[in-house]
Amino acid sequence: MSKTHVDVNAHPIRVYLVGAGPGDPELLTLKAARLLARADVVLYDALVDTRVLDLAPQARLINVGKRGGGASTAQRFINRALVTSARRHGCVVRLKGGDPTLFGRLDEETQALRAAGIAFAVVPGVTAACAAAANAGMSLTLRGVSRAATFATPRVASGAHVGVPAAGDDTLVIYMAGQVLGDLALQLIADGRSPDTPLIVVESASLPCEQRWTGTLARAAQWPGPAHGGPVLLMIGPALATAAWAPQPSLLGVAA
Amino acid sequence: MSKTHVDVNAHPIRVYLVGAGPGDPELLTLKAARLLARADVVLYDALVDTRVLDLAPQARLINVGKRGGGASTAQRFINRALVTSARRHGCVVRLKGGDPTLFGRLDEETQALRAAGIAFAVVPGVTAACAAAANAGMSLTLRGVSRAATFATPRVASGAHVGVPAAGDDTLVIYMAGQVLGDLALQLIADGRSPDTPLIVVESASLPCEQRWTGTLARAAQWPGPAHGGPVLLMIGPALATAAWAPQPSLLGVAA
Repeated sequence: MSKTHVDVNAHPIRVYLVGAGPGDPELLTLKAARLLARADVVLYDALVDTRVLDLAPQARLINVGKRGGGASTAQRFINRALVTSARRHGCVVRLKGGDPTLFGRLDEETQALRAAGIAFAVVPGVTAACAAAANAGMSLTLRGVSRAATFATPRVASGAHVGVPAAGDDTLVIYMAGQVLGDLALQLIADGRSPDTPLIVVESASLPCEQRWTGTLARAAQWPGPAHGGPVLLMIGPALATAAWAPQPSLLGVAA
Repeated sequence: MSKTHVDVNAHPIRVYLVGAGPGDPELLTLKAARLLARADVVLYDALVDTRVLDLAPQARLINVGKRGGGASTAQRFINRALVTSARRHGCVVRLKGGDPTLFGRLDEETQALRAAGIAFAVVPGVTAACAAAANAGMSLTLRGVSRAATFATPRVASGAHVGVPAAGDDTLVIYMAGQVLGDLALQLIADGRSPDTPLIVVESASLPCEQRWTGTLARAAQWPGPAHGGPVLLMIGPALATAAWAPQPSLLGVAA
């Protein structure tokens, strides 16, 4: 395989870009927990649970979540903090909510590290869609019904048009969907999906405060809105019909 | 939320359907490791690494991987073993490769448990696509390029037609793609994707023997085939262009 910046990865890894999972600290990977335990610095997102940060007792914790000044200012701040921390410390963990390879702006941070000649590695995590489906006791794909699952974010461009890929009966998961749920449902019906297609809204997937609302595309407007301002995930497709049998989130903890 | 089998989830959970992650034991979740440590029985797939099974020292280990007699016979055997084990033991772990909500035939097993009145919970895992992208140091989605990632399996119906959803520049990940790679690339070009679209083939994502091959749709036929018969994952899309800078898998372990 070709490598453009060979030097970067000849050096020992200084920065780990790590998926923190969907929220429940128990859904962290063993590798993430081990890296947190030996981290000198942890740069974390707003969505990372404080119980996850407790796993890094010796680290300096830096909150790089949303700040004033807009997204690009915040990203420049994160990039600079990453590079500065890596030059001063032996082990820097950049802890990102969910999985870093999905909707995590990973590329902007790895570009900054490459430009600075700092070796890094990426550690995957459990993405919220899988946690939300698991807690609902159901599969995102279903033999004979849905052979694919698409994970997307809504494009809220000027004019509030919401574009999503939609292929037949395959499952569609929209992250950060709270604002666009009604418009999205109408659009999918207009695009030919059945109004009876199951739709599940999950707020704060995997956390003790997880909320789940089950409906259909036609009934999307009846969703009462987020209960506590947590991140909202939307799952759509005929494969989700089995969710009616799902256990309650409160029963899902590992029994003592 | 409506529940059809209320009784099932009023009982304590007897069976945990757990994602084992993509292969690297370090990518197991803390919850999965804790459940394995206290499991009485572990029913595991062929793709689960033996180092993962070492985390269940007190459990009876039952391999329910591929057997003679075809897929449906094997699934009936798994369902029966799950129900029998749950009736005899306090804690049964059904360990499934990757994440159980993606391509895991989860529904067939949960239906058997529901029919038998056995309470269960599903524990999500890291899916191979996220691990493969992470090891390549890249994101599956990329701002301004790809706003969605579709995870699919090829449909190899009679006549060897390979159908996949393909939406513009969004990223497409095909699991179990080894047999259909060439046909799939030709089809995507015929469907309008650029022949220069980056294509990455990953065999045994996250394991020490991980192999990565980087090409384009037009050069797909040059892939030399699997090196050691491991599971093959195919990633396609312009977001993957950054993979050229990726670290080698051998550098990705947690340094001692």
